[in-house]
Amino acid sequence: MMQNNFDFNHLLRRGVAEVIVEEEFIARLKNGDKLRLKEGFDPSSSDIHLGHMVGLRKLRQFQELGHEVVLIVGDWTAQIGDPTGQSVTRPVLSYEQVKSNAETYMQQFFKIVDRSRTEVRWQSEWFGEFSLADVLKLTGRFTIAQFLAREDFNKRFTAGKPITLTEFIYPLLQAYDSVQIQAGVEFGGTDQKFNLLVGRELQGMVGQQPQQVLMTPLLVGTDGAHKMSKSLGNYIGITEAPAQIFGKVMSVPDNLLMDYFTLVTDVPDAELAEFRTEIENGANPMALKKRLAREIISQLYDKSAATAAEDNFVRIVQNKETPAEIPEFRIIPGTLSIPGVMLDAGLVKSKGEAMRLIQQGGVEIDGNKITEPNYPVANGAVLKAGKRRYVMLVE
Amino acid sequence: MMQNNFDFNHLLRRGVAEVIVEEEFIARLKNGDKLRLKEGFDPSSSDIHLGHMVGLRKLRQFQELGHEVVLIVGDWTAQIGDPTGQSVTRPVLSYEQVKSNAETYMQQFFKIVDRSRTEVRWQSEWFGEFSLADVLKLTGRFTIAQFLAREDFNKRFTAGKPITLTEFIYPLLQAYDSVQIQAGVEFGGTDQKFNLLVGRELQGMVGQQPQQVLMTPLLVGTDGAHKMSKSLGNYIGITEAPAQIFGKVMSVPDNLLMDYFTLVTDVPDAELAEFRTEIENGANPMALKKRLAREIISQLYDKSAATAAEDNFVRIVQNKETPAEIPEFRIIPGTLSIPGVMLDAGLVKSKGEAMRLIQQGGVEIDGNKITEPNYPVANGAVLKAGKRRYVMLVE
Repeated sequence: MMQNNFDFNHLLRRGVAEVIVEEEFIARLKNGDKLRLKEGFDPSSSDIHLGHMVGLRKLRQFQELGHEVVLIVGDWTAQIGDPTGQSVTRPVLSYEQVKSNAETYMQQFFKIVDRSRTEVRWQSEWFGEFSLADVLKLTGRFTIAQFLAREDFNKRFTAGKPITLTEFIYPLLQAYDSVQIQAGVEFGGTDQKFNLLVGRELQGMVGQQPQQVLMTPLLVGTDGAHKMSKSLGNYIGITEAPAQIFGKVMSVPDNLLMDYFTLVTDVPDAELAEFRTEIENGANPMALKKRLAREIISQLYDKSAATAAEDNFVRIVQNKETPAEIPEFRIIPGTLSIPGVMLDAGLVKSKGEAMRLIQQGGVEIDGNKITEPNYPVANGAVLKAGKRRYVMLVE
Repeated sequence: MMQNNFDFNHLLRRGVAEVIVEEEFIARLKNGDKLRLKEGFDPSSSDIHLGHMVGLRKLRQFQELGHEVVLIVGDWTAQIGDPTGQSVTRPVLSYEQVKSNAETYMQQFFKIVDRSRTEVRWQSEWFGEFSLADVLKLTGRFTIAQFLAREDFNKRFTAGKPITLTEFIYPLLQAYDSVQIQAGVEFGGTDQKFNLLVGRELQGMVGQQPQQVLMTPLLVGTDGAHKMSKSLGNYIGITEAPAQIFGKVMSVPDNLLMDYFTLVTDVPDAELAEFRTEIENGANPMALKKRLAREIISQLYDKSAATAAEDNFVRIVQNKETPAEIPEFRIIPGTLSIPGVMLDAGLVKSKGEAMRLIQQGGVEIDGNKITEPNYPVANGAVLKAGKRRYVMLVE
């Protein structure tokens, strides 16, 4: 059953950067059309962070109105590799790697998106048998000038930086995905605008109803400066432990607080307006940050995990060591020799001292006393040695 | 057995517009390398004219030194159709048409090129199974800027005229042909320079010795104005009847005479120099034109055919009707009803008059008296009615 009573402001404006074409889109929604919601992912990486969550939550909202997600696994393009690199002459990912990454991705994806209303399609279903004739039919429909009008291509071209022909073909493949699955709406970040519109255009050319395009804003990362991204290290992963997420949310710059509330929580608009007033009136944002962290953890785990993470954080704060004051020490996450880490991080003068401290119950990781020297350490874990010595172990 | 004693001036300069890279090329020839000579053709048209003969004669010269021609039948691209047209969404030629055109073409091709030293390859051998991955490997090697530097693309781009992506892929396919057959030299007109060099570049990229490029000049047609081409009607086809070829050669403008001698005959350079002197001294070029026509017909047929064609021509001239003075009448070549043609051309006042003239032996086509009303007429045939009425039947 399609529900066609919905709140336009919530659905098409909150957490939405741009909709093309809004009027058309609203008409289809009012008409009760069941729309196929296209979401693609590149299985060369498998981790989902809060930045992705903005779009995935939007998918979920549409699902709750009865629409269906079509998740496209870009298994095929991932096996070809990045066209801008030198690696194009051979596959960068094996089929097994792609498959494994896709599985990992989907475990995370379905923490937010409703699996029962999702169809998963692999690009190889259509591109595996794609012939040169098919390629030329596709490339014959678009002109060089159209592509060079794309902002990033134009900048690179003007600056004399190389753009390979392959880079012009990629948007066409993404567009062809839309035709194959008869997408009704394609979701993407604002940086995907050109590609999303190529899909719309191609559908029209082959006689399909052109897809609507829903672009979500780019979430700024915990550094307060750049788009959240794994490679910049300014991300909050959705599979991170509650304590880590809590700590990372607390480190989000104050001026981004309302963006995070708007984009990754369901706190109603009316309440958000109150938050804004409080902040303008000079309230300490600490309480709001805690609320934000709880909202996020509740979605990804549950309320009790959110509460436990907060309690853990409060204990550390009550010990007069706020997370911001904890020095960081670089590690490669995994099962580590804790005495070695403690020595290298300058918490003890010898491994022997560290071992004795562990045996006395004086070493904790994320609030858990450790009893063995080898212990699994995740990125962002807080190690406490004795009463007041802390270090955050980061990748 | 390779012969490596040869006349560079004859082989690499006469009838050659440009060679890339001459030094490298000469070194390979001196070294006695057996080179694979690449020649491609588009089977969407099947007729060879004197303009093509310039390159084919050059192939023949190389064959006589022991090198081998590889003729590439562009069966595959022909089936895709012209990318600049609107016809790209469906094949313009069926497989049967391509095959039939290829057969017609080869019958003509082997009038000039030595069949025993020619390998015929069809593009479909490699492009039939070409995958999208193969396409992207190829397109990843070249940049948009490289293609936009090509003169014709640059002009169109600057003028705001559309260039499809497909048009950028075509040169890559031609280049890939070179890789597949390990071409040693690619032959083409000067208008093909960019594409020929892409082949050279691609071979280097995949670790093959880059091909040499030999470009032949474009032969100006019988109109004295444009490149010889079937669509402009200014061509001399190599399968035309000797009488037609003779007549058409006589219509070549005087200022092109030496070009024709240089490009499509074997008259030695020393003799050509004498011809030039004669012309400069004001000699009537008629004798030289007859010589040119005989040289061409001798190559395509034999000496006796050349002599007969000349005799036929002389008879017409002796009748005080030079070919230039014969009016033209448009026909569709084939077996025609001659009385109908004569009536429409204004040679007679009725079909009855035409029939009587035929029965009296007063009608000739290309010097042959006709006895039946239906008669096979080729393009350029001269119809004579009575003693002084002539018409040239042209397409």
